[in-house]
Amino acid sequence: MIGSLDALVRALSPKPVLAVAVAQDAHVLLALRNAADAGLCRPLLIGNEAAIFAAADAAGVALGDMEILPCEGDVECCRAAVRLVREGRAQAVMKGLCGTATILREVLHAETGLRESALLSYVSVFELPGFERLIFLTDPALNMYPDTDAKKHIIHNAVSVARAMGVALPVVACVCALETVNPKMPPTLDAAELVRLWQEREIQNCIVTGPLALDNCLYREAALHKGIEDENAGRADILLVPNIEAGNVLHKAFSMVLGAPGAGVLVGARAPVVITSRVDSEEFKLRSIALALHIAAERNA
Amino acid sequence: MIGSLDALVRALSPKPVLAVAVAQDAHVLLALRNAADAGLCRPLLIGNEAAIFAAADAAGVALGDMEILPCEGDVECCRAAVRLVREGRAQAVMKGLCGTATILREVLHAETGLRESALLSYVSVFELPGFERLIFLTDPALNMYPDTDAKKHIIHNAVSVARAMGVALPVVACVCALETVNPKMPPTLDAAELVRLWQEREIQNCIVTGPLALDNCLYREAALHKGIEDENAGRADILLVPNIEAGNVLHKAFSMVLGAPGAGVLVGARAPVVITSRVDSEEFKLRSIALALHIAAERNA
Repeated sequence: MIGSLDALVRALSPKPVLAVAVAQDAHVLLALRNAADAGLCRPLLIGNEAAIFAAADAAGVALGDMEILPCEGDVECCRAAVRLVREGRAQAVMKGLCGTATILREVLHAETGLRESALLSYVSVFELPGFERLIFLTDPALNMYPDTDAKKHIIHNAVSVARAMGVALPVVACVCALETVNPKMPPTLDAAELVRLWQEREIQNCIVTGPLALDNCLYREAALHKGIEDENAGRADILLVPNIEAGNVLHKAFSMVLGAPGAGVLVGARAPVVITSRVDSEEFKLRSIALALHIAAERNA
Repeated sequence: MIGSLDALVRALSPKPVLAVAVAQDAHVLLALRNAADAGLCRPLLIGNEAAIFAAADAAGVALGDMEILPCEGDVECCRAAVRLVREGRAQAVMKGLCGTATILREVLHAETGLRESALLSYVSVFELPGFERLIFLTDPALNMYPDTDAKKHIIHNAVSVARAMGVALPVVACVCALETVNPKMPPTLDAAELVRLWQEREIQNCIVTGPLALDNCLYREAALHKGIEDENAGRADILLVPNIEAGNVLHKAFSMVLGAPGAGVLVGARAPVVITSRVDSEEFKLRSIALALHIAAERNA
């Protein structure tokens, strides 16, 4: 198991290509400079050449040997990035200065896209203080109010990330506000249904447990203290949150209030997609690129 | 402003009385012992006398001069605790070994209860690393999926707690997963409506802002970085969460994963109600009792 995210930030050989759509974004170019310097990848910058040079100037970033593929228009740039992956000339995609919806539309395009599983979802992963294992969190960013079927696919996507990180049989905990099924709290019903689907082997390569409140997902002694009999309570690798608000506050509490080392990536397509935000720390951006390239390398191994 | 929760844990004079309903609970008796030793209150233990002695024995707690009011039956004990507050003989109520619903029913009883505002809500408060101000969080425990009207009352209750803690004009941030109003995300609509109600002075004694994601509630520089013009973004004192799942994970991330000093109390009635959980740390329980007694003292000042 890869217990430290920094273990990901290492030179891969051969060096994978990261196709960056609408690359004229100062904060993205800085992250790419760091990634290239770490030997992680060869960035392929897709976009308006003059705008890319201007953004690099503004960020004080030396483009050096980064390759530029001149391209006009957000849709065209996103389509080009996706095509490069389809042709095997790039291993992962990164969003630059365009809307998330624009790049997702191209990734999910029925004919020219990279669609693979039923849905795309965002998975973040953190090194939390006091934990020897990595803690995965999904979905804090993309799927707003997933139903049980969507959650099944979100689990599938997160399990693929955890397995790529060396967790052979991850424990997926359905995070709720309490430990009992309560018809007034729909996430607890979803949790019971997801456990049933797992028992019937409709969800595989993991263990699904819940409903559990966060403390009883993460801490074995909290679960024992509360008298919860489930032997997987307190042993979660993957936190499946019920809605985007719960996921988003937890992601931000971990990354910003705790300052825990973390990374995040969009998965469910044939190649991982890196979507970073201006406010993410440089470390978070670098580790997110590393995570995406690691996942891509594991897929192609 | 009371910047440290530990400032609350001090001897009050005259010593307030804390009425404990169904007191035969080992973990509650231990918390009460600590509170009495800190000079915070005189606990009044309501319940079965033999069971109280047995629970104290089990917890290794010396009851000392704690007073016992013999009473049988959960409902009867809760009713007695509430009556003592109505009669001015106790200043706050604490839940012992009974269901939360049982004590709330008595607190909210139309004729014999302590009903005051439109609803009861739970408010927690934390000292987060890097913050000079206290951060209040509501409602992580009681109200599941409050509508806009319920949120208005939840704000009112939390503002009363923040003001009792010396924050004259607290900033209430409506926590969402992003900063823009999106009809597909009901909490963002609620946030816009709550800001409107505040502008029309239907919500007072505070500033209401939102929708904001957690980072832009808490960190001024994150809000500036993102180009958010609202001058109250990044300056939240009170985090109003949209649903119980978001509140519960945030409360537990702060208290358990971060290990931040915290406290929590149920407010909205004529007296605060202390409801602690077995898994709360002794420090959290002690500070929660102190917070309740401080609020009661401020009310009666």
